[in-house]
Parts: sequence; structure tokens; C-alpha cells
Amino acid sequence: MSVLVVGSIALDTIETPYGKVEDALGGSAVYFSLAAGLLGDVRLVGVVGEDFPRQYMDVLAGRRIHTAGLEVSSGKTFRWTGAYRGGMNDAETLAVELNVFGTYDPRIPAAYADTEYVFLANGSPRIQRRVREQMPRAAMVVCDTMNLWIDTARPELVKLLAEVDAVVLNDQETRMLTSCHRLVEAGRRILDMGPKFVVIKKGEHGSLLVARDETFALPAFPTAEVKDPTGAGDSFAGGMMGYLADTRDHSPAGLKRAMACGTVVASLAVEGFGTKALETCARADLDSRYARFKEMLRL
Amino acid sequence: MSVLVVGSIALDTIETPYGKVEDALGGSAVYFSLAAGLLGDVRLVGVVGEDFPRQYMDVLAGRRIHTAGLEVSSGKTFRWTGAYRGGMNDAETLAVELNVFGTYDPRIPAAYADTEYVFLANGSPRIQRRVREQMPRAAMVVCDTMNLWIDTARPELVKLLAEVDAVVLNDQETRMLTSCHRLVEAGRRILDMGPKFVVIKKGEHGSLLVARDETFALPAFPTAEVKDPTGAGDSFAGGMMGYLADTRDHSPAGLKRAMACGTVVASLAVEGFGTKALETCARADLDSRYARFKEMLRL
Repeated sequence: MSVLVVGSIALDTIETPYGKVEDALGGSAVYFSLAAGLLGDVRLVGVVGEDFPRQYMDVLAGRRIHTAGLEVSSGKTFRWTGAYRGGMNDAETLAVELNVFGTYDPRIPAAYADTEYVFLANGSPRIQRRVREQMPRAAMVVCDTMNLWIDTARPELVKLLAEVDAVVLNDQETRMLTSCHRLVEAGRRILDMGPKFVVIKKGEHGSLLVARDETFALPAFPTAEVKDPTGAGDSFAGGMMGYLADTRDHSPAGLKRAMACGTVVASLAVEGFGTKALETCARADLDSRYARFKEMLRL
Repeated sequence: MSVLVVGSIALDTIETPYGKVEDALGGSAVYFSLAAGLLGDVRLVGVVGEDFPRQYMDVLAGRRIHTAGLEVSSGKTFRWTGAYRGGMNDAETLAVELNVFGTYDPRIPAAYADTEYVFLANGSPRIQRRVREQMPRAAMVVCDTMNLWIDTARPELVKLLAEVDAVVLNDQETRMLTSCHRLVEAGRRILDMGPKFVVIKKGEHGSLLVARDETFALPAFPTAEVKDPTGAGDSFAGGMMGYLADTRDHSPAGLKRAMACGTVVASLAVEGFGTKALETCARADLDSRYARFKEMLRL
């Protein structure tokens, strides 16, 4: 079963207390794809500029990531520069150049119209809704968002939330969207906007699922080797959606295992700079860490 | 098997977005005792003033809390006034009156010298060390601390850490003590100071255990009914120590279940104002929530 993702493809310049990279492969759709690609086929829809390095195309091709939906536009690729100072929980954005991503209007290839699992990575809710319209046969559509859209495009975001099956967002965004500090209650307020479940990402503190009849929390996998948290949330979503597409199990227990899979993939992702760790890890690494995570949580 | 606790007994005035109480029963040793008292006998060592209300003595007597080590000194009881504004994660201390607690020098009753499980609740490391000296036969001594002592009494605190089996502290204190942001690594630096294991409390985000050969994380129990987080950390420690004294299982799996028990007791505690929820809940409430927590974490 395939997963389709629409989102950013970027060249990232990142500094953390443990190192620095320049113009590294990045972007929400890339992290998501490399993560979900550990579990199955991924259909990547996005845009790059003419400057997008050939070797990054090879990285994508090295996984089960299909790029028929990857447009190359005249102009430069989206660039993001960020730094983690003091804490590793929040990146400070130092520069953003939208470039070809700024005017991007995603077109889903006809061959992808049958995709059952769809992830709308962080982007303008207007664009996310246009993609959603193009995927009427999806079994599960999940979206991400960010503080910018909660602040500047709330009415459109609220419409989007009524049209998706689930939303994945972080704790700050959850509180900002609902004006409610208590996360479980905040999650329930988002359910009232339409989604069947809400996954609240808390970075190093794990994640929380709020559904109509079910609430549960998982810790993060306690890795000591965090080098670069960039893309952890998208890696989490990729692991989760990849697992769901693989198992087609939407039960509460299935969602929980999908979140656990996302947790484990994210913990692998943050152990390297940029996408390096995701590029080099194998399904066996995921499976063995999943087994450790499962054992860690056995009471 | 008994647990002995030395710490503060207070009259708390607390305001949260969900209500307010004045001169309510509180203090680290009280929360700890009410929590551990759900699981077994507790020996409470502390001091109150002549103004300590009779009905609060009855609350303690209503549990398996032994008060032969409770001194009544001439003067007023320790008072704390705090408020939770905006977030529920950190209390803002509005006023502290140390009163009789300010000059308190704990004396352990001779009949308590055989206690095997000892908790040194937050207090001056100098006083904590004097108590530790009086308990040479303890099987497990665990201490708490706070930012104040890390800041003002670090040499004494470092000596204490070399004399205890474990330390329980929150994530901010962990980072402050070690100047290390990554919690697993910070926990390992504390192990280098002497303790066999470190339990890092993260409030609504759960807890983390770092031992020489073992690291694991547990989420908090996701209750929607948080009314007052005061005492959550001491309730966690009480549930954990009560479980350890009950089972005498110091293996990694035993420590994990003890932390899970602490997690569940803390989640019950925060559902009421002050100590109210702990006063009214029963062992059956703890057991049934523990079973739900265990099931929640089953992958």
C-alpha cells in the first residue's frame, strides 16, 4: 500500500551544538518520505528548483520513493536556515527563501489518484485543501500545520480540519489553536472541529493521541545521541503513516502501534544531521528499536 | 515494609485556573505520605507549629501514616502561597513563611532506625545528610532537591548524592545541576556523582529513569481533569517508594513498575485541590488506573 505526501523539499542549513551542515537535503516531504519509505512505497509530490543537486535525487531514488509528482521549476529550491541554541527542542529560524515553493500549486499525477493514505505536510491550508480535493478516494488523510497558519489563515485551517481524518501538530500549536492549556482537553476541542483523531507531538517528551473514545500517551524513545532534531516531527508522521498503510489497522491499538513506529523512526532520525541517519538506516534498525521500545513499555 | 519520609509539612494557599484553597494541608512530606500510604505503612518525620489544625492530624491518622516523628514546636507552621497562571506546569511562588520549619533539625525516633526505605524530601542538603547518617541500615535511600540548593549549596548537595542510592528531580533541576541539556546524558553525569539511578520527573510529560545499564521513559497518565498540580512530584515519589517497599524488587523491571505506580498516584493527586484527591482515593482506584496505564502502554 502506498502513502502519498505533499510538502516542502528544501536545502537546509542547520547548526546545533553538535555540528553544522549547509544546503543539506531537507523539507517536510523529504523527511516524511525517507521515514515512510522504511515501511513501504511513497509517492512524493513537491517542487524543486533547477539547482536541486543530482545526488539528492539519487538519495530519494535509493528508497521506495516515487518521484513522478516531483516538479522541477525554473528558479531556486526552497531554502531554510535554522539553529538550535541552548535547548534542542525549538529551532530558531534564521532565514527562509521560499523560491519555487512560494508559488507552488501541487498537481497530483493521475496515476496517484488511487492512493489510500495521504499526508498533507505543513503548508498553506488553502493549498492543503486543494490537494485534499484531488484525493477523494483516500482511506485516510492526515494533515500537519504550524503556528504561522493558525495565526494568519485560521478560517481556511478550520475548513481543512473538517475535511481530514486526522491532524498531527505539536503541543504549542495545539494550545495556540484552541486557547486551552490542558492538552487532553485541547485535543478534544480539535476533535470538535472534525478530525477523528488528533496526534499531539511533544518532541523529546513523546506524543499524545486524542480520539473520541480513547486517549493515550507514549514517551519518546530515550536516545542519548540527539545530534539534530530537524525533521523529527515529519519523520514521526512518516513512520506513523507508513505503518498505517502497511497494516491498514485503524483501530485504537493499531493507531497506538503506528504512533510507536513513528516514535522509533523519529528517534533514529535525530541521531544524525539532516536526513543522514534516515538515509543510512534500514528496516532492521527500525524493527530492532521497535522491539526495544515495546519491551521498555511493558509493565 | 515501612517507608520513612523527612520533609516539609505545610499550610498551602494555592490558586489555579480551576479554583483556590487557603491554608490547606500540604508540604512535600505530606503528599509523599498520603501517596505511599496507599501502599503500606509510612513513618512521617517533620515539624508543625502549634497552629496546625487538629483535623489535618486526623487526615494523617486516617491513613497508614505513623506520626511518632512529628514534632509540634512553639510557633507557626510552614506556609506556602503559590499560583498557576497561564500554564499548569510551573507554580509561581508568591510567599513563603518558613516559621518552625526554618530551624528544624530532624530527630529520627529510635523505633524508626530499622526503616529500610527512606525518602529525603526536598530540603537543605545539610539537613538531608544528617538524616541520612541516622539511617545506616536503610536498603534504599532516595533524595529530592530543588534549584535553590543547586544554586546555593552545591558542594553539600554533591556530598549528599554520593551517600544516597537514588535521586528524584525534575528536568529543569537536572539540566541546572549538570549544565547539560540532553536529559539522558545529564542523568548519566549525575550517576557519576554516586547514585545508582536517577529519576527525572517531567510533570505532564512523564518521567525518565537513567541507571548504569538501563534508560527508560514513561509518559504521564493522560488525565483530562488536572485541577492542581501541587505535590505531583512528591506524590510520584511516594507511589514509587511505597511500591518499592512493598515489593522489595530493585531490578530494572521493578524500578519501572515502581515509577509506573508513582505516575498513576500522581495522576490521581492532580485531579483534586491540594491533598483532597489523595485523601479520598483508595487502593482500588490506584490498582484500576494502574491496570489502564499498563494496557495503554502495551504495544
